[in-house]
Amino acid sequence: MTEQAATVLGIDIGGTKMAAALVSADGRILTGDRIMTPPGDADEVFAALAELIERVRGDATPLAVGIGSAGPLDQRHGLVSPVNITGWRNFPLVDRVRALVGDVPVTLGVDGHCFALGEFWTGAGRDVGTLLGIVVSTGVGGGLVVDGKAVIGQSGNAAHIGHVVVDLDGEACACGSFGCVEAYASGPRMVARAKRRGWRTAEDVDAAVLAADAADGDELALAAFDDGAQALAAGIVATAVTVDLTTVVIGGGVAKAGSILFDPVQAWVKRLAQLPFVTDLTVEPAQLDNAGLLGAAHQAWSAVA
Amino acid sequence: MTEQAATVLGIDIGGTKMAAALVSADGRILTGDRIMTPPGDADEVFAALAELIERVRGDATPLAVGIGSAGPLDQRHGLVSPVNITGWRNFPLVDRVRALVGDVPVTLGVDGHCFALGEFWTGAGRDVGTLLGIVVSTGVGGGLVVDGKAVIGQSGNAAHIGHVVVDLDGEACACGSFGCVEAYASGPRMVARAKRRGWRTAEDVDAAVLAADAADGDELALAAFDDGAQALAAGIVATAVTVDLTTVVIGGGVAKAGSILFDPVQAWVKRLAQLPFVTDLTVEPAQLDNAGLLGAAHQAWSAVA
Repeated sequence: MTEQAATVLGIDIGGTKMAAALVSADGRILTGDRIMTPPGDADEVFAALAELIERVRGDATPLAVGIGSAGPLDQRHGLVSPVNITGWRNFPLVDRVRALVGDVPVTLGVDGHCFALGEFWTGAGRDVGTLLGIVVSTGVGGGLVVDGKAVIGQSGNAAHIGHVVVDLDGEACACGSFGCVEAYASGPRMVARAKRRGWRTAEDVDAAVLAADAADGDELALAAFDDGAQALAAGIVATAVTVDLTTVVIGGGVAKAGSILFDPVQAWVKRLAQLPFVTDLTVEPAQLDNAGLLGAAHQAWSAVA
Repeated sequence: MTEQAATVLGIDIGGTKMAAALVSADGRILTGDRIMTPPGDADEVFAALAELIERVRGDATPLAVGIGSAGPLDQRHGLVSPVNITGWRNFPLVDRVRALVGDVPVTLGVDGHCFALGEFWTGAGRDVGTLLGIVVSTGVGGGLVVDGKAVIGQSGNAAHIGHVVVDLDGEACACGSFGCVEAYASGPRMVARAKRRGWRTAEDVDAAVLAADAADGDELALAAFDDGAQALAAGIVATAVTVDLTTVVIGGGVAKAGSILFDPVQAWVKRLAQLPFVTDLTVEPAQLDNAGLLGAAHQAWSAVA
């Protein structure tokens, strides 16, 4: 019973998967599970999540619940509208979860913020108080932890690192602006850039194939990663000189490319980070598979601290 | 006597001028003065400052002292090495001032941070909790105020907005990096850019002349301001999407150009700030002549709050 009292429930909502876990105060997952995010209307999607939550919770009574979700979010009203969960638009996730788990604090945070918090708590950032976490995937998102706390921002949208402008008169971005990090460094944009230069033009291939070709020495694939890495590095340095930080952690599907991504990112960071307080800036791979889930749990623990 | 008890002493140290004032809890200057920063060795410079402090203080007993200074600073040890005060290198300004004023809290902050705090306290940002302040002058510096507090950073160097990288493979910057805001937007760099294109090539002119020519419709002068404005806007948007803010205040000598600078900055910001939470981003001129001095005083009040 003591063990049960000392847990929170972390929930991670993504367009592909949903995960839930009971997490101890020192960041251990006591029990957890995940499911593929189902298609369907609002109630069908929530029914699948509710079943997952009940199964993970068992007869435990978590002290609080922390939810990390793909955005956009309306944190003030506890609403979520994940781009890739079309059944949920302004879905009252916080209220629905609270109805399920009882009257405990339920927090809601941006998935990128939770990723950064999770890596800060028990991953690559566990020895530092301040870090930038970046998720490079279909888009480029992230989160900032300063002095051990996630930077949320007045509208809840801090750390939109993918939309830091790094190139004057640069490429058009899906957001409507120009020269954003994401326009160079997301998986699809790196693939599109390589294709424009002649790489596998007729094939339906993704960033994993691009990374494999780069590892085999394909010049066009390497160039696309170098361009993406340069933009990421510029965004990293912009954030570092603004927020004053020395640790950056990168995760997400594209980061699975390993040194194909990290070598040029580190080289570009070394070139661009010249002010004395950022010359020691380090960029490391994420260490956790479930940083977002753990970050959501960390938020929940903060709510009862 | 009651009046005397309710003041702090604000001090603003710059390469050109030094100012001091007794400031009330609501941001009023009760008495203040300024001097030209003298040449000389460490003790000669401090003697001039000490004379200013004694004169401003009179027989008042300020509750605390706040110092804003041109950098670099070593805030932990209270040392200052202002680039343009060559007599002070790792000068123990905090200890020397404390020896003068007695055992009260003495705070030390970066001049750009104090500028932002001052505008937040009683200037253009007084109705908002979060703002970015930028000083455009010989260089480009600034400060961030989030939820009413200056963001200092773990090394004390937050908000180096002039060294946000905004142009991939961009122009070399004095800091050693490439594509920094300052490389396009500082007064001397705008002048140099216009000269490279043929503007007043043989004359020794400054940004004030450039602004006057731009106001007269000179195409080369207007283009230099537009390039600087574009870089400033990219740095502003980078900061806004990272920190989640909607208010930017610009001061400093180059900002005296007025609409010559602000019109293109606002136009570029409008073009680059596309995410919904930053579309209302406003960029305004500083309202105070002495924001740095008031921000230093605000720091002092925070130390006794």
